[in-house]
Amino acid sequence: MKKKNKKVNAAILVIGNEILSGRTQDKNVAFISKWLNENCGISVKEVNIIPDTEKIIVNNILDLSKRFNYVFTTGGIGPTHDDITAKSISKAFKVKYEYHKEAFQILENYYGKSKFNDGRKKMAKMPRGAKLIYNPSSAAPGFILKNVLSLPGVPSILNSMIENSKKYLVKGSKTFSQTINLFTVESNISKELGIIQKRYKKNVDIGSYPFFRLGKIGVSIVFRSTTKKKLHNVKKELEKLVKIKKIKILRI
Amino acid sequence: MKKKNKKVNAAILVIGNEILSGRTQDKNVAFISKWLNENCGISVKEVNIIPDTEKIIVNNILDLSKRFNYVFTTGGIGPTHDDITAKSISKAFKVKYEYHKEAFQILENYYGKSKFNDGRKKMAKMPRGAKLIYNPSSAAPGFILKNVLSLPGVPSILNSMIENSKKYLVKGSKTFSQTINLFTVESNISKELGIIQKRYKKNVDIGSYPFFRLGKIGVSIVFRSTTKKKLHNVKKELEKLVKIKKIKILRI
Repeated sequence: MKKKNKKVNAAILVIGNEILSGRTQDKNVAFISKWLNENCGISVKEVNIIPDTEKIIVNNILDLSKRFNYVFTTGGIGPTHDDITAKSISKAFKVKYEYHKEAFQILENYYGKSKFNDGRKKMAKMPRGAKLIYNPSSAAPGFILKNVLSLPGVPSILNSMIENSKKYLVKGSKTFSQTINLFTVESNISKELGIIQKRYKKNVDIGSYPFFRLGKIGVSIVFRSTTKKKLHNVKKELEKLVKIKKIKILRI
Repeated sequence: MKKKNKKVNAAILVIGNEILSGRTQDKNVAFISKWLNENCGISVKEVNIIPDTEKIIVNNILDLSKRFNYVFTTGGIGPTHDDITAKSISKAFKVKYEYHKEAFQILENYYGKSKFNDGRKKMAKMPRGAKLIYNPSSAAPGFILKNVLSLPGVPSILNSMIENSKKYLVKGSKTFSQTINLFTVESNISKELGIIQKRYKKNVDIGSYPFFRLGKIGVSIVFRSTTKKKLHNVKKELEKLVKIKKIKILRI
């Protein structure tokens, strides 16, 4: 039986003024995108970075959750006034924003009754109907409502939690990727590369990215496909091209 | 005379499968955002990261150019088949995609007539009416059409060019920013921080970001405003709060 490719996609919504202002360098997009492809065969197709503004969050949640199989939000689920992701998602889906019993219990146990203040309690407030994404490093859980999964913005905490979002996700076909690094310039091979891409336009995405290494200019050719065989064929064609053009390969 | 705050905003459109797949860590967003604020008083309000797909680029250009004063695109202006930014912007604004005379001349001089092949010539193709953004490091210019400015994806080249986009931009009011790093947890100060933010909601944005440094947990309080005086007032209120709560400040 021929195995059918199953395409499952996702968008990432990065919520945070600190990313937009350039104060903080986002690292979650690359991490989530790689993790989703490697572990779930899910491709990230769009990323939006937006400020901590309720109306903007609501609009983005409604738009992205319609257009993609899953939406991952990062940021805005902490205890301070600028953490408004849970409240905004409640508004977007018109459900109550209220204490989640289990989240409340988890946080109360973690901090102890006497130290469980209002800020900490806020982290137990979620849209009604949300299911928890457990947090092994700092207790405060993320959550999923419909096809929207909310994770924190601190990379180390997000990284420790993402495994716990797996059970909510339908798997797709993994995209395999190969790279050849060439000591040449893009314009030396752009024509032939375009011809190869056209021939495989249905199954393989070929990308070309300049690099500077060991004091030399080079080009990384990255080819990606859900079909290993097609990837193999493209590799053979590229090797032929490299031979004809007498280009050196950087082996790392 | 009272100086009036002039708000000028921008969006960044990151075009590239390599960023979406997580292969490449974007560094241009933070750079552009900081540069725009520091040098032009322009605030980045939205970032979209999208694949190298014509229809998606066209839709994003039309949408963002309507909603923001400026749109900066990064990526997709090189010589290979996956570089389709200039062509897509031409489609979006319904103008011809053709050789730009001056860009053609610049590139021909740079490579020499005999080495000026089709791939290299492609980098001189732009939407009709585009003006050039000169490139001091690798010749191939960026361009501006209407309120859309297109820059390359390679950070070192982009960084060298951005100064040349300045002449096309209307200046706004710079956002000033201050940070206090505290050895505490967010939930210890979230209530009071919320009260201060409410009091200054018109003029100051207060953000709270956990950090881990010197083996300790802390919180960076970042407050941003176009009015230095308001910033000073918020600082005073924060210092009072820190004193009352007996919180240690991390001085760096």
